[in-house]
Amino acid sequence: MPVDPKRTVSELKELRALTGDVDGAQRVAFTPVWQAARDWLTKKLAGLPVEVHRDAAGNLWATLRGRSERELLIGGHLDSVPNGGWLDGCLNVLAGLEILRRIHHQYPGGPPVTVRLVDWADEEGARFGKSLFGSSACSGALDLVEARRLKDKQGIPLPEALKAIGVDLELVKESGRELKRAAAYLELHIEQGPVLLDLGLPLGAVLGTFGVERHAVTFRGQAAHSGSTPMNRRKDAFRAAAKMSEEIYRIAERSGGGVCTIGQCTTKPGIVTSVVEECRITLDQRHLDGGALARMLAEAREASTRFAEEGGVAVAWERLWQIEPRPFHRELIDLCEAAIKETGVTSHRLPSGPLHDAAEVCGAGVPTVMMFVQSLHGISHNKIEDTREEDLELCVVAFDRLASKTMDWIETGR
Amino acid sequence: MPVDPKRTVSELKELRALTGDVDGAQRVAFTPVWQAARDWLTKKLAGLPVEVHRDAAGNLWATLRGRSERELLIGGHLDSVPNGGWLDGCLNVLAGLEILRRIHHQYPGGPPVTVRLVDWADEEGARFGKSLFGSSACSGALDLVEARRLKDKQGIPLPEALKAIGVDLELVKESGRELKRAAAYLELHIEQGPVLLDLGLPLGAVLGTFGVERHAVTFRGQAAHSGSTPMNRRKDAFRAAAKMSEEIYRIAERSGGGVCTIGQCTTKPGIVTSVVEECRITLDQRHLDGGALARMLAEAREASTRFAEEGGVAVAWERLWQIEPRPFHRELIDLCEAAIKETGVTSHRLPSGPLHDAAEVCGAGVPTVMMFVQSLHGISHNKIEDTREEDLELCVVAFDRLASKTMDWIETGR
Repeated sequence: MPVDPKRTVSELKELRALTGDVDGAQRVAFTPVWQAARDWLTKKLAGLPVEVHRDAAGNLWATLRGRSERELLIGGHLDSVPNGGWLDGCLNVLAGLEILRRIHHQYPGGPPVTVRLVDWADEEGARFGKSLFGSSACSGALDLVEARRLKDKQGIPLPEALKAIGVDLELVKESGRELKRAAAYLELHIEQGPVLLDLGLPLGAVLGTFGVERHAVTFRGQAAHSGSTPMNRRKDAFRAAAKMSEEIYRIAERSGGGVCTIGQCTTKPGIVTSVVEECRITLDQRHLDGGALARMLAEAREASTRFAEEGGVAVAWERLWQIEPRPFHRELIDLCEAAIKETGVTSHRLPSGPLHDAAEVCGAGVPTVMMFVQSLHGISHNKIEDTREEDLELCVVAFDRLASKTMDWIETGR
Repeated sequence: MPVDPKRTVSELKELRALTGDVDGAQRVAFTPVWQAARDWLTKKLAGLPVEVHRDAAGNLWATLRGRSERELLIGGHLDSVPNGGWLDGCLNVLAGLEILRRIHHQYPGGPPVTVRLVDWADEEGARFGKSLFGSSACSGALDLVEARRLKDKQGIPLPEALKAIGVDLELVKESGRELKRAAAYLELHIEQGPVLLDLGLPLGAVLGTFGVERHAVTFRGQAAHSGSTPMNRRKDAFRAAAKMSEEIYRIAERSGGGVCTIGQCTTKPGIVTSVVEECRITLDQRHLDGGALARMLAEAREASTRFAEEGGVAVAWERLWQIEPRPFHRELIDLCEAAIKETGVTSHRLPSGPLHDAAEVCGAGVPTVMMFVQSLHGISHNKIEDTREEDLELCVVAFDRLASKTMDWIETGR
């Protein structure tokens, strides 16, 4: 029995009906709806000879023992943002479930290598503002000092929310033991962008996740009356900040594949009758190449200094967050591309702008690759997030082929 | 006895000590500190044969009856913004007080025309966000429908706050009768800008107050993930809005004397990981010439449409407020300039960017002029607001001369 991709689509719809409403998916991590999604998954797994357990970080693991202890990991996340899409994260999990079924059917006495499906806890970080919680605990990258201080909008601390579901924040890194025998990690995901859509291709092999430099850039000038201050006497912080807007498009273009975003702009005093004294923008820069990312950052810093000097204002930078690029495993990228081509379609290699749990697993030293399936509209984190059903079915088939190829790759010793 | 400008400076300091603290002046309208300032002024007026009364809008009038019923009005305002400067508004009132003393001394049997000093109520609008309250009630321009809805930060409605000091909002326009016999209105004020400072001149004759066009301009694009959205696929509302920043400097330059200010910028969703979907800026445009102001507005609208089209976003305009330019009386401007020159300094003609009570009185059809005295730093509405003492003394002398000339002008029939 091969995989049944129509069953995956049908199960995606079943999950949507169970855990969504008119505004979209509501599987925010650590909430009752999320728990209901996990209970539903656990019931689905009950039909297979898998061991199911939750690790110290709240990640859910289903293990199909094989003849070798070396493990193929397939990951995803059932949690969603509030009013989220029906595919982001759970497509990965349900495709993995279908692949476990296929492998069990093909190897009733146990597959050649151990195969495990993991449902990572709180990939989205929707409630506490910190994404990749479960996978970063598992990889060891989680910043515990920061995590202890996180609170949701109601002021509930993360440690307390975790305690309520039986997770002790101080022990979450013990989940790291789950990766001890991991030989490869695979993750399927919707693209969440328009690249495959623009190319008219259903599937892509992911080269890795972008490195990210995230900063707040604050320009400081002088508040002055909008009526009585001649234009040539102004120290206009908004004017300097606004010049960054065009500049980041030039920087991104020069970078060869990077992206830059000013996502937020705040002004002080921020009143209609005053020249802006202080203007703070956030700048998010991403590139798959660490050197190129460093150049993008240097160029933005240099431009901000130039614009500040031109406007007689000061500028200060504050790093908000940073992550290195995570290039995926070359041989697994080749296998991913081969699996896609075997389904009869053209493959395209592309980087992932958004982060994924795969970045954490890759960072922990496990050979990793991701497969992307086209997103309609290029939109996610929204109820209009969607993918053609034929593409959903195709991606399950291709991802299953990738799983087969990776098992062979593990068995024959990379 | 001529005017004693040193006494005015000394009284300004006395008032500062009585109604200020380390953060600046605290004479916010309708508060006990403001009332204390008025009580102090009333005591000062008690030494003169003036009739003192409060009109239906809470403006305080001191009338020195003359042989003619035709009136010379001298105005100012004791109220300040919170943490305000020591001169804004009260210099006008105290110079007027000193001039009343001089006139009474010169004409012990009564001056040739009636002279009145008015302390306008709530010029600043610091508490309810609506400036020129008392003078616009008196001129008739006050929008009662809007005023009935105004609330302070504590949620207290303006009508209630007025009631507490014995003013009935529904009757405030009865104060209009105070202007019935007005033949001229004079107001002295600190410049609140750097024009006289840059020219190295102490005094200026004001041509009128700028007309103002105040709008919110909202650009609407598409939220999109900062990592997965290629630069050429973005509909970046901040990018379109930011282009307005340079453009308004070009528009102001072309306008010949106008000013434009973007004072506020807000972004939605306003998060570091998303392209800006909606960016709202406020645009304040001012010019002394109505036609030029209309052209400035048209050019800004045209530019916003062009930038929106370039970026694939939409743009919408909303008028927040508008006032016509108020050119002052040509003959009174000449008298003002002559008065300044008689003190031995060069005069400069300049428009007023900020509004003043004079704009309301002028709008009510009373021949009006203002005199400006240089501001150090070009800063007001701040405790560092200041003017050299020698300039303060000079402005009292020049303003007194203007009052004399204007009395002659009234007497001889304009």
